[in-house]
Amino acid sequence: MRIKFFSGALSLFTGLSLFSLSSLSASAATPASISSPNGNIKLEFKLDNLGAPLYSISYKEKTLVADSKLGLVGSEAEFISGFSIASVDTTSSDTSWTPVWGEYASVRDNHREMAVKLVAPNPERLLTIRFRLFDDGVGFRYELPLQDKVNYLTLMAEKTEFRFCDDHTLFCIPGDYDTDEYLWSETSFSSLPEALASYAGHSEAQRAGGNTIQTPLLLKTKDHVYVNLHEAALVGYPAMLLDTNTARFSLSSHLVPDRLGVAGYLQLPFSTPWRTLIISDDARDILASQLIYNLNEPCAFEDTSWIRPMKFVGVWWEMFVGHKKTWAYSDDYRAKPGITDYDKLTPNGRHPANTANVLKYVDFAADHNIDAVLVEGWNQGWEDWCSFRKNRQFLFDAPYPDFDVDSIQRYANSRGVKIIMHHETAANAADYERQLDRAFAFMNDHGYDAVKTGYVGAIIPRSEHHTSQWMVDHVLYVADQAARHHIMVDSHEAPRPTGLCRTYPNWVAQESARGGEFESMGGNPPSHTCILPFTRLKGGPMDYTPGLFETRLSYYGEGKTEQAGTTIARQLALYLTMPSPLQMACDLPENYLRFPDAFKFIEDVPVDWKDSKYLEAEPARYITVARLDKNSDDWYVGAITDHNARTATIDLSFLPVGVKYEATIYEDAPDADWKENPQAYRIRKVKVNSRTRLRQHLAPGGGCAIRITPISK
Amino acid sequence: MRIKFFSGALSLFTGLSLFSLSSLSASAATPASISSPNGNIKLEFKLDNLGAPLYSISYKEKTLVADSKLGLVGSEAEFISGFSIASVDTTSSDTSWTPVWGEYASVRDNHREMAVKLVAPNPERLLTIRFRLFDDGVGFRYELPLQDKVNYLTLMAEKTEFRFCDDHTLFCIPGDYDTDEYLWSETSFSSLPEALASYAGHSEAQRAGGNTIQTPLLLKTKDHVYVNLHEAALVGYPAMLLDTNTARFSLSSHLVPDRLGVAGYLQLPFSTPWRTLIISDDARDILASQLIYNLNEPCAFEDTSWIRPMKFVGVWWEMFVGHKKTWAYSDDYRAKPGITDYDKLTPNGRHPANTANVLKYVDFAADHNIDAVLVEGWNQGWEDWCSFRKNRQFLFDAPYPDFDVDSIQRYANSRGVKIIMHHETAANAADYERQLDRAFAFMNDHGYDAVKTGYVGAIIPRSEHHTSQWMVDHVLYVADQAARHHIMVDSHEAPRPTGLCRTYPNWVAQESARGGEFESMGGNPPSHTCILPFTRLKGGPMDYTPGLFETRLSYYGEGKTEQAGTTIARQLALYLTMPSPLQMACDLPENYLRFPDAFKFIEDVPVDWKDSKYLEAEPARYITVARLDKNSDDWYVGAITDHNARTATIDLSFLPVGVKYEATIYEDAPDADWKENPQAYRIRKVKVNSRTRLRQHLAPGGGCAIRITPISK
Repeated sequence: MRIKFFSGALSLFTGLSLFSLSSLSASAATPASISSPNGNIKLEFKLDNLGAPLYSISYKEKTLVADSKLGLVGSEAEFISGFSIASVDTTSSDTSWTPVWGEYASVRDNHREMAVKLVAPNPERLLTIRFRLFDDGVGFRYELPLQDKVNYLTLMAEKTEFRFCDDHTLFCIPGDYDTDEYLWSETSFSSLPEALASYAGHSEAQRAGGNTIQTPLLLKTKDHVYVNLHEAALVGYPAMLLDTNTARFSLSSHLVPDRLGVAGYLQLPFSTPWRTLIISDDARDILASQLIYNLNEPCAFEDTSWIRPMKFVGVWWEMFVGHKKTWAYSDDYRAKPGITDYDKLTPNGRHPANTANVLKYVDFAADHNIDAVLVEGWNQGWEDWCSFRKNRQFLFDAPYPDFDVDSIQRYANSRGVKIIMHHETAANAADYERQLDRAFAFMNDHGYDAVKTGYVGAIIPRSEHHTSQWMVDHVLYVADQAARHHIMVDSHEAPRPTGLCRTYPNWVAQESARGGEFESMGGNPPSHTCILPFTRLKGGPMDYTPGLFETRLSYYGEGKTEQAGTTIARQLALYLTMPSPLQMACDLPENYLRFPDAFKFIEDVPVDWKDSKYLEAEPARYITVARLDKNSDDWYVGAITDHNARTATIDLSFLPVGVKYEATIYEDAPDADWKENPQAYRIRKVKVNSRTRLRQHLAPGGGCAIRITPISK
Repeated sequence: MRIKFFSGALSLFTGLSLFSLSSLSASAATPASISSPNGNIKLEFKLDNLGAPLYSISYKEKTLVADSKLGLVGSEAEFISGFSIASVDTTSSDTSWTPVWGEYASVRDNHREMAVKLVAPNPERLLTIRFRLFDDGVGFRYELPLQDKVNYLTLMAEKTEFRFCDDHTLFCIPGDYDTDEYLWSETSFSSLPEALASYAGHSEAQRAGGNTIQTPLLLKTKDHVYVNLHEAALVGYPAMLLDTNTARFSLSSHLVPDRLGVAGYLQLPFSTPWRTLIISDDARDILASQLIYNLNEPCAFEDTSWIRPMKFVGVWWEMFVGHKKTWAYSDDYRAKPGITDYDKLTPNGRHPANTANVLKYVDFAADHNIDAVLVEGWNQGWEDWCSFRKNRQFLFDAPYPDFDVDSIQRYANSRGVKIIMHHETAANAADYERQLDRAFAFMNDHGYDAVKTGYVGAIIPRSEHHTSQWMVDHVLYVADQAARHHIMVDSHEAPRPTGLCRTYPNWVAQESARGGEFESMGGNPPSHTCILPFTRLKGGPMDYTPGLFETRLSYYGEGKTEQAGTTIARQLALYLTMPSPLQMACDLPENYLRFPDAFKFIEDVPVDWKDSKYLEAEPARYITVARLDKNSDDWYVGAITDHNARTATIDLSFLPVGVKYEATIYEDAPDADWKENPQAYRIRKVKVNSRTRLRQHLAPGGGCAIRITPISK
């Protein structure tokens, strides 16, 4: 039966002649405007003489974004011009909310809002554009209300412009439909083509082409105004890239299409994600901003007691550095999951996800205040890695023969350690959904409460990209289904986060950027972790995997020559500068046992915070931050620099007046250097109080980590 | 993490240089040949001077298929030429097997087999072509064994030719990637372009273009040899269409690609479906052939006791003919499943899937020996029908407010009637898989044991067609998952069947052709049901929905003018000529109550058989068949004709000698005529035995149905 329904469906829409030949009426309209609560940011909205919506933003009385277009283009209707303003509603709101975890125990949401209702004729089209101004920036989104003449919108493009006024500095990565695992360029509008050319041949993924870059994007004006441009609450919509007009210093939205060229399939009513600009002339405000979380919906769960921030070690780094160790149990690449009898397969003897090895990690975690152990390579399917080309790669409820899930869980339980599940999907999201219920039931049955997911390769369904609408929907579906099973999610190779972890706080972390693993694949320069907190991290925590103590890969003697752009002291600082409720100690236990006094900091450092104070910051250069433990009165400080040595000034005036503290300082030795002497650190204790101002030497590529504990009377 | 794996994967394949520049070696080879057990069919295999495989088929010493090419083309390797024959293994087998249901209590599988192992160099490629010859036809398939130089094959094309030798008559429908719901053309190679042109504008689906037609295809030679060309055991592979070379009288395989242009993603070892030719100079043999089932794997289930053939009525035809009745509960097309609160929606008052109406159907079924009631439109989501454009259309565990699933089940149970579930997916197979576990659990919880599935519209995942590889996999996945829940499946808009119901006997029926519903959408001419058993039905039973008693749609007074191409007596005969273990009585109960004596036949007729005897047959002209009830000694006969009146000769010599029977004959009245007088029938009883030869008048578009019951001593 097919024809019947189509004629039925057509008749439903009888009379909805969506396009008309009559000319669009031009609407002259008075500009509408709104300011941030402190008045520093002003936004003006108007229609041009064709009735096309325009907005502009000024910061401290200087134009930051000049008149820029707004609009949506669907196959069934365009929302671009011909509008008149039906109403402008302005409201203000000052509330606060309590995150389940994060950098602050409480987050203030103080904003003014302006909702501009637009109407266009022939056929009638309704569009609301909602602006919210905070002291630290702007968010706006499109809202397509329920309306008589448009029901579905096959979205072809969003026409949002961001017209900046000068040749600003850009901190950016190339536009790509499938990956964001790039090193960052510090460039400018005019130099962008050259910067992007340097990425040629980088990736297997699909580059958007042209002068297209990704969000979160950081801009810096010649007046030292910083702007983080990103989006909030990406739900039911594709991710946004930005096309650059390098001559006009202008950016415009470039929605990630599916492979049929369609950006999104919408049904009205629908609200797009928020387009966000975090704005300040103090770089520290960019780091402190909670604007993107404020634009997300409140927590969707009544009970969040099962969500627990945690640190973990993992059977993982071994596969990157250790004597050709593998995720696969056997070297027979022709093995097929669900078909091969693994008990009959010859083991390769280089498979660390085996029971004995996992138990060693469990012991290490239990002995060192680490909550959990991630195990990768535990399940059947790694032998014949081949994403995109087959409908089933992995089984998610089938351990390898040498991984005794029951005895591992019994032992881990007895030692108070959790095992973290790993679900690599080979980017076959379709098959992962097939197996999802069973996979989560398997986790529940065996005591797992957190999963690291992965989407390495080209996506199945084959119409999709990693960041097209269907995949955006998929990862949220996985997080939501996981919540129903009381499971926390750490998604890798998923669309970059947009603050959804406020609404779904079981979605504790994502990768969605070039992580620490790349220290074994070309390396990350020291500046890399000085830019990520200004960009990628604004959407949510990153599973960056800090804690690398053996930074020279030549140590493992396999011809590898990479060296991580870091000292040991800097690795400790990353636990503060890269905050996440799910924080790995990435290195091998035996490496930690070589430096037990330094590892003590990782044992001690919390992963959830009552308060945070950004003390010093400049993108790609340095960050110094202090954080107050959520569960004690201990403060922690982390400071990092780029490849240049630096003296960090750590003003402890945030400490309560009159209270005495002891600071344990983990610092680069005077002769430390990421390249020549990365493992030279010193640990010293000093008495401090609110009047203390520490001046800390940071080595090239170095850092400093401090624990500040009240001295009991 | 992404790059790592790709380099890892590449290194796995180091040394597998799949293509070589060295020239292919030509292999001269002796032809290999094999005959059917009775010797009527002969097949010869050889390599041409480029080492390309060729086969030919003769029937009764005349060439039927001249030298035709064989081969597969993948992105990674081609299996086309350069071959030499490594071995030819010939075996024979004569067994029989017991279907769970069907036309015969036991099926004989008597065949000779020839496996030709081929090898090509540079790089080494192994290909086995396996031929099986039965007395009623030929099957062959490609087998790609495990081999060192090829692991994956991204299949771009299959190069199977069928070179016929003359301008045969073709009974065919247009090639289409998404639908098979066409009327049949009786044409020829030379007239095919003209015939296909007549379908212009027929369908919303994607036509394959060119002179492409579908299987099952029926050919008839000038010597009155009939050939059904189709495939068996379509698993993990796309459906096959046929490109026609009208001048050369040749067909070649045209695999349905996905929207990226790829036919299939294979991992070796892999066996393709069988390419099948059912061959006979007696048209009755085509109908009787079990060749396609014989080429499928045995039943996959140990316990089949839960699979029960059945008849059903349905809340269904009302929506086609009844006063604008709808599947939807409300007329608010903007309602969204999972968002709308249906309890607050205004009901449209034209929604037959309501409790009171369903209970009437239950009573009717219970009173008239009907096993089950199908209810369509019971679940949320019909208001805003829009396939392809959104990720969720229907909920499969959410009844409409006026459908009380619990009280309906209680009442149905009390009356011994089953309710058949309906899962229309709007072709969103991806979302159906998301909901599948819960949907089947909902069915189990509420006592449903059969589901009619539907895929109306364009497929999601949007890379797919209805008959591309992923969807072939999907429908089998659904059938297999259903079996785990002891659920029977009747799939509509699914890839046309290829005998898989032998292996998965819970897959009791499919639509996969233009069904009885089209009597309300343009009508089906009488010849339509005279060709379907020669074509579509060879792959498996069809849910055709016979039993239409009110054949004039003008009866319902809604401006509809269609008239079904049938008399009432013919509708009764369809229960024999269109055998299915799931057989609908499609009309409204009130229409059956107008003709209770005729409906008695539908009450009595079984849906599962011990034996079947095809007495008369000519494609698109007439069929006469007798069948022995599996559970009694009653025989049933059905006879149909096209738009021409006919006298059927019903030779009852198949009855056991010496046993006396009473025949109840449901026949067209002398003045009956599908157009002018469709409801004129007579019922009479006569004594018969094995010496009886009945001569039955069939009206234009008419038929005859007979129940033959032993007279107890």
